[in-house]
Amino acid sequence: MRSVIREYPKGRLEAFTDGVIAIVITLLVLDLGVKAGSEDDLLQAILDEWPAYLAYFISFFTVGAFWLRHHTITNNIREVDTAFLRLNLLVIFFLSFLPFPTKLVAEFLEQEDAERVAVVFYGIVLLLVAVSFNLLWRYASHKRRLLNRDTSDDEVRELNDALTPSLAGYVIAIAVGIAFPTVAVVLFLVMAIFIALPLGTFRAAVRQS
Amino acid sequence: MRSVIREYPKGRLEAFTDGVIAIVITLLVLDLGVKAGSEDDLLQAILDEWPAYLAYFISFFTVGAFWLRHHTITNNIREVDTAFLRLNLLVIFFLSFLPFPTKLVAEFLEQEDAERVAVVFYGIVLLLVAVSFNLLWRYASHKRRLLNRDTSDDEVRELNDALTPSLAGYVIAIAVGIAFPTVAVVLFLVMAIFIALPLGTFRAAVRQS
Amino acid sequence: MRSVIREYPKGRLEAFTDGVIAIVITLLVLDLGVKAGSEDDLLQAILDEWPAYLAYFISFFTVGAFWLRHHTITNNIREVDTAFLRLNLLVIFFLSFLPFPTKLVAEFLEQEDAERVAVVFYGIVLLLVAVSFNLLWRYASHKRRLLNRDTSDDEVRELNDALTPSLAGYVIAIAVGIAFPTVAVVLFLVMAIFIALPLGTFRAAVRQS
Amino acid sequence: MRSVIREYPKGRLEAFTDGVIAIVITLLVLDLGVKAGSEDDLLQAILDEWPAYLAYFISFFTVGAFWLRHHTITNNIREVDTAFLRLNLLVIFFLSFLPFPTKLVAEFLEQEDAERVAVVFYGIVLLLVAVSFNLLWRYASHKRRLLNRDTSDDEVRELNDALTPSLAGYVIAIAVGIAFPTVAVVLFLVMAIFIALPLGTFRAAVRQS
Repeated sequence: MRSVIREYPKGRLEAFTDGVIAIVITLLVLDLGVKAGSEDDLLQAILDEWPAYLAYFISFFTVGAFWLRHHTITNNIREVDTAFLRLNLLVIFFLSFLPFPTKLVAEFLEQEDAERVAVVFYGIVLLLVAVSFNLLWRYASHKRRLLNRDTSDDEVRELNDALTPSLAGYVIAIAVGIAFPTVAVVLFLVMAIFIALPLGTFRAAVRQS
Repeated sequence: MRSVIREYPKGRLEAFTDGVIAIVITLLVLDLGVKAGSEDDLLQAILDEWPAYLAYFISFFTVGAFWLRHHTITNNIREVDTAFLRLNLLVIFFLSFLPFPTKLVAEFLEQEDAERVAVVFYGIVLLLVAVSFNLLWRYASHKRRLLNRDTSDDEVRELNDALTPSLAGYVIAIAVGIAFPTVAVVLFLVMAIFIALPLGTFRAAVRQS
Repeated sequence: MRSVIREYPKGRLEAFTDGVIAIVITLLVLDLGVKAGSEDDLLQAILDEWPAYLAYFISFFTVGAFWLRHHTITNNIREVDTAFLRLNLLVIFFLSFLPFPTKLVAEFLEQEDAERVAVVFYGIVLLLVAVSFNLLWRYASHKRRLLNRDTSDDEVRELNDALTPSLAGYVIAIAVGIAFPTVAVVLFLVMAIFIALPLGTFRAAVRQS
Repeated sequence: MRSVIREYPKGRLEAFTDGVIAIVITLLVLDLGVKAGSEDDLLQAILDEWPAYLAYFISFFTVGAFWLRHHTITNNIREVDTAFLRLNLLVIFFLSFLPFPTKLVAEFLEQEDAERVAVVFYGIVLLLVAVSFNLLWRYASHKRRLLNRDTSDDEVRELNDALTPSLAGYVIAIAVGIAFPTVAVVLFLVMAIFIALPLGTFRAAVRQS
């Protein structure tokens, strides 16, 4: 298994990763539901589930943001090697674990002590996703190991600059979450929106047109 | 993350979206089942689940219809940019939310008040899917931003004409659903069949042969 | 949506169908499990679930066999049109419905009356899958509408001959199932094995080598 | 169905297999959860679930390792034939069955008798996966039936040498599991890590840079 696996076209890694992310992002909805006996006031029952929607929204756009980043990374590499495949497996491992803490946040938001634990746990898993993404990118970009010819050093720096802040962001959110879990949830929300839907992009797009 | 993500081949966006839609469309079946203790009269128990089949049928063909439209849209664009990827994430967000209101419709059909809430909620989510689809297409086709060279203006107009009526249709169905939820369900059903299985296509195909 | 959708490359249809079939085939396992309180004699509890394994096995290889056939069909066509996409949606609709009757068979096997209902219901869904597959293939092959140039008439006939018997087989199995549900289950099993794992292929392969 | 299916491009087999593996690997998380009434001490409740994490971890990296091997196999073949497609279906069958014994291990670890049964059952399924993988590779490589031109005999031998030990490993782990189930779990864990994350690869990668 050593010298046989050398270098591969990147298509299959992309397809496999897309599959996993598509499933993770879609499985999240399975945890949405109203309590039994909600038929008397279904509207209220639906509204009561807001922590579940919030957790769903944050996890969806966080995973979506990581998909965008994965897209950017593989778009800038020319091929993959065995170590890259395995680091990618690590990324997928943490990503596909995310529905579990998401479920806990959805369930225990507004329940003081349990909320703290759930939020910190959620933050730690997000941090592990972000760390493994950073490893993946550092590995690929170190001495331009797997990069495309036409990826400029500026682009590498830019991608570095985009990946590193999220590490810091998650560390801060976890620290905040120990004292103020609700604030940490807001931070996760802001980060998800900021990464997935930056106003800058749309502004630039509008300006272009 | 700004200037790095510029333009991409569209293949991975298609694969990811296909993955999500395939999962959404297949997950719907998980909510089908008969009540415990149905062994005495399983046939009756299966027939009693008709609201679940109806909801399943409508959601399946509605999602299928949106897949067909997504197929048409990406077939008419030559590549994707960052804003398009993010708008697509929004489409996926609402699409993958759909199993939740589908479950509510299946559960509360025939339960007067709850039915009204479930049907209107369902309609709103469908409307949001349709709105995000329109945004995606308007963004891509505005001043032919991402269009293929060989997509004619006539074709753009035709696709516009196909996407806009569903917006109106969902608004009407929601309004109707407030007063007559059962009628709204019929409207959703008709729209799903109309978009997914237009007789026109088959007639044309038969004529061709 | 009419004249815009004309002809498409077949790749995306294949990917979407593969996604759906992959999910259907994998979801089946979710219904496997032992009853609560099985810790005292887990081995017995696992063995007691044999109807569930049987249903799982049959559905897995039946869906697998349909995947092989879909593979053969799309391998023999050069492109897809709108009507083909929609017929394919119909195929997917029945295929992704299959986990529901599978669950019923697994649950009610050995419960006389309920078994009859579950087995006939299962057979009807399989028949609908087979019918929609036939429609798909007839549509594509009628007057060689969508066929590859290098698909010979002999090959078309052979595929016809492979698809039609399963229709007859399912009709017979349903009829048998009304009187003798257990025999029908054996028929489904034999058909699944026969389509998915024909000894002929291996014999030919061995002879080749 | 006999002479029609002859040889195919391998892309669709890869896509389908990737889909199934992506789903299997992601479904595993659905079984993670805390017991009802955990809000008083959620941290403890999360920690109490360690057997579930262990089972999740082992199954995730075992499946991941098999994905890497599948990747290696298909990378070394030039096309697929009918028998290969069917052998691959067998691989998928055992792989997608894995979530069931995983769930049993997660549930019954630390419950003496039940643990023994669960662990041995788990090992048998893993062995069946490994056996079917070996069949797949032997079939493809026998007299270089489906191999790429540029795959050297050395590479074939190396892949043989990588696939065979896991057979032996699983047989040993099963035998050990009958007497000492906990030790067998450790063996499964070590094998998963060894296959999925060999230090050798990273060492080589670091040396290269």
